[in-house]
Amino acid sequence: MRFILFLDCEDVRSGVVVDGDVVDLAALGIPGTASLLDVLRGGPDALVAIRSALSRTVPPRPLNGLKLLAPVPASGKNIFCVGRNYLGHVEEGYRARGLAIDVPQAPQIFTKPRTALAAAGEALSFEKRVSDRMDYEGELGIIIGKGGRDIAPEHAMDHVFGYTVINDITARDLQRRHDQWFKGKSLDQSCPMGPWIVTRDEVTDIGSVEIRTTVNGETRQCARVSQMIFDIPTILAELSKGMTLEPGDIIASGTPEGVGYAMATPQFLADGDIVTVTISGIGELSNRIALR
Amino acid sequence: MRFILFLDCEDVRSGVVVDGDVVDLAALGIPGTASLLDVLRGGPDALVAIRSALSRTVPPRPLNGLKLLAPVPASGKNIFCVGRNYLGHVEEGYRARGLAIDVPQAPQIFTKPRTALAAAGEALSFEKRVSDRMDYEGELGIIIGKGGRDIAPEHAMDHVFGYTVINDITARDLQRRHDQWFKGKSLDQSCPMGPWIVTRDEVTDIGSVEIRTTVNGETRQCARVSQMIFDIPTILAELSKGMTLEPGDIIASGTPEGVGYAMATPQFLADGDIVTVTISGIGELSNRIALR
Repeated sequence: MRFILFLDCEDVRSGVVVDGDVVDLAALGIPGTASLLDVLRGGPDALVAIRSALSRTVPPRPLNGLKLLAPVPASGKNIFCVGRNYLGHVEEGYRARGLAIDVPQAPQIFTKPRTALAAAGEALSFEKRVSDRMDYEGELGIIIGKGGRDIAPEHAMDHVFGYTVINDITARDLQRRHDQWFKGKSLDQSCPMGPWIVTRDEVTDIGSVEIRTTVNGETRQCARVSQMIFDIPTILAELSKGMTLEPGDIIASGTPEGVGYAMATPQFLADGDIVTVTISGIGELSNRIALR
Repeated sequence: MRFILFLDCEDVRSGVVVDGDVVDLAALGIPGTASLLDVLRGGPDALVAIRSALSRTVPPRPLNGLKLLAPVPASGKNIFCVGRNYLGHVEEGYRARGLAIDVPQAPQIFTKPRTALAAAGEALSFEKRVSDRMDYEGELGIIIGKGGRDIAPEHAMDHVFGYTVINDITARDLQRRHDQWFKGKSLDQSCPMGPWIVTRDEVTDIGSVEIRTTVNGETRQCARVSQMIFDIPTILAELSKGMTLEPGDIIASGTPEGVGYAMATPQFLADGDIVTVTISGIGELSNRIALR
């Protein structure tokens, strides 16, 4: 199933996408599944109840034309992000800075705040006086369903509710200037995400899933999830050591090689650029850059 | 005024401390100030209304014996933290690792998740198999009242609602192992905070305020806020460049020299240790360490 958040006048609604139409979760009338966060907390039973209710007649509305939001249930957390998780990206980063390559021995984790979230299709406004080195990073987003601490790798996938598409947009100058990556990763609208969350059961082999990032149609990044240095079970196990994961937590799992700053001639995002991250079987996240 | 969060049976209540007693904010019956987050959002008018209402007779309850919580209004954000913000701490860190001293040219910002929060007086449980290098960092906590983006240094103090005491407990081994500091800073219960939020008007000269950290009564850290490399207006200005701050956001402003790992013979926290961070005119935060 594919879950979205959308605006109905000023109300935030949760919906499930069926054949290009959207059914409002609240309209299904299932106790305890009116919101996306409820569904995440409800586990497999909630999904079964929703699937069953969808076979009844509920008036849908067309997806096309709905005002989508980033499909993020409120949970009171920043977005977890894994840095340098594809070997090609590790190598290009050190190469661009003229440094010896040093492959991470453990996941490098930082965060982006919820104020950075943006929806699929939303124009992303940045200001040159804040940063003139805005760069894209297409990434697979992992959505936590069942929470937990000290999650064993062999049980980690039970905690994955589903997947989404994230563009971890980064101000390269601020990332360097502030040493720790948080500030350069956290500008308003620098975390477009969506268009939906696809439940785990719809993805039969996550390793074979392809991530592709294009700028104005030109392919810049293309890799498979199997190329990650730290796979999803390892990320969840390492992240949850002594630290509780909760339903609705979001993990951006790292970007493949091909970012703008590491190109032979570095290319940063320009006003009017269209950045599209496509993850096969999961979705397409496209945003126009407005750089003033 | 001093604001707290406390448990009344299972309910989270917001209170104001008056002469050792606590008045439940909801009992004051002022529209829009029933919770601490309401008060933060309400600005100076909310404070005036509360102060005025306190002069009426409202049955208080004794602070002593109340089950306190970290005085954190829900806001959907991690806690912002400034690293290496006292010269003495910058120097001791590089010295301990045998590296040349490199003073930060911009605030180094990372975060701690809300799952790390703990209250004053709460026992903090950590596990040796996760980390055997747990260390304290006493810090002034800044609570944002009025939100904003691109805050000018000269207006920054208008955005400060008040202050609290934070212990930025750090797993030094994880901090190094994961390169980015987030993971080593984010274990459950590694962010004790409180006992209360003191409003800005109660602190006439924040620079002269003293931060002192003791372990089992032995002073380990002692410095004044004026010794910060980046002062509060600079932190708020840098943090809010292109990034929106919101009411209820929390900033841990950095720790002075004297952390355990940088001592001539490094000393990490041991089972049964009592760590107390005292900030003059603001409060005392004391926690027992349970290390198994």
